[in-house]
Amino acid sequence: MQTVFHLIADEPAQQRTALTIAENLTEDDSVEIDDVAIVAQADGIEPLTAGGDGSETVKSLLEAGIAVKACSNTLEMKDLADSDLVEGVETVPSGGGELTRLQSEGYAYIRP
Amino acid sequence: MQTVFHLIADEPAQQRTALTIAENLTEDDSVEIDDVAIVAQADGIEPLTAGGDGSETVKSLLEAGIAVKACSNTLEMKDLADSDLVEGVETVPSGGGELTRLQSEGYAYIRP
Amino acid sequence: MQTVFHLIADEPAQQRTALTIAENLTEDDSVEIDDVAIVAQADGIEPLTAGGDGSETVKSLLEAGIAVKACSNTLEMKDLADSDLVEGVETVPSGGGELTRLQSEGYAYIRP
Repeated sequence: MQTVFHLIADEPAQQRTALTIAENLTEDDSVEIDDVAIVAQADGIEPLTAGGDGSETVKSLLEAGIAVKACSNTLEMKDLADSDLVEGVETVPSGGGELTRLQSEGYAYIRP
Repeated sequence: MQTVFHLIADEPAQQRTALTIAENLTEDDSVEIDDVAIVAQADGIEPLTAGGDGSETVKSLLEAGIAVKACSNTLEMKDLADSDLVEGVETVPSGGGELTRLQSEGYAYIRP
Repeated sequence: MQTVFHLIADEPAQQRTALTIAENLTEDDSVEIDDVAIVAQADGIEPLTAGGDGSETVKSLLEAGIAVKACSNTLEMKDLADSDLVEGVETVPSGGGELTRLQSEGYAYIRP
C-alpha cells in the first residue's frame, strides 16, 4: 500500500503532527506500506526549507526513504529557489497535479 | 485524471489557496486532467454565494469548465436559496455523498 | 460505497461539523452508502473520550452502525486507556495505517 501526506497549512503544530503520523505509519506492522510520499504546497512548504521549522524531521523522513515533494508554483510565489530546500527534497510542477497523479496510481491520501 | 477539491473551512486565506490550486492544476501540463470539481459545504460555502468573498474566482473557475457544487444541507442550515448562489453553481443533496460518489468514480480528493 | 472521515484537529466546531456530515451522509438517498467509518487521531480524539466534547454525537453514530476508531499512538501520547473511550469505540495500531488500509479497500476519504 502507498500513502501520500498533504502539507498545506501554516500551522507548526499541524505540520509536526503530520510528520509524526508519517513516522508512525512506517512503524505500523499491521499494514504493508510500500511507499510514503509527502507533497507540500502553500504555507505547508515551511518544514521543507533549509533551517525551517520542522526541517530536522523532514531530514529524518528523507533518510527513512520517504519522498518529499515541493510544489514549484509555491516556490515561485514565495520567491524560493531549489537551493533553499532541504537537500533531497524534489520539486513537482504543481502540488495539485502531483496529488492527483499519486492518487490515480493508488496512493491513499491523508491531510493532517 | 479527475480531481475534486473540498471547501469546508471558514478561512478566507484557505479558500483562496484552494481556488488558486484548482487554477494551477488546470495549467499543469505534466498531468492529463479531464475533470475538476469543487464541492463546498459548511463554512466553505462562502465563495459560492453571489458577492461572497472569493466569488469572483468561483466565476472564473466556472468559466474554465470546472463544476462547482454546493451542499443542500448547508444551504438549508444557513437559510440560503439557490438564487443566493453564483450563477452556474450546482446543488447536491449532501456534500459527503457527492465526495463519496466522485471518489468512487476515480476522482482524486484534495482538501486545501 | 464506503466513506471514512478523518478527525484530527483540535477544533470543536470542526469536529461537530464532521459528525454532522457523517450523520447527513447516512440520510442521503442519492448515494448507496454501505459503510461509514471515523478514524480519529491527535487532537481529533476528544469526541471519542467518555464525557468529551462531542461524545454524545459519537454515541449516536455508534448506535447508527458507524465504526469509530481511535489511534493507539494517540492514546499512548495522551496517556489515555481504552477505558477512557466511549463504549463501542475500537482502537487501531495507527491512524495513518488504518486510513491507508480503508482507502486501499475502496473507501472514499473525507477530511472535515
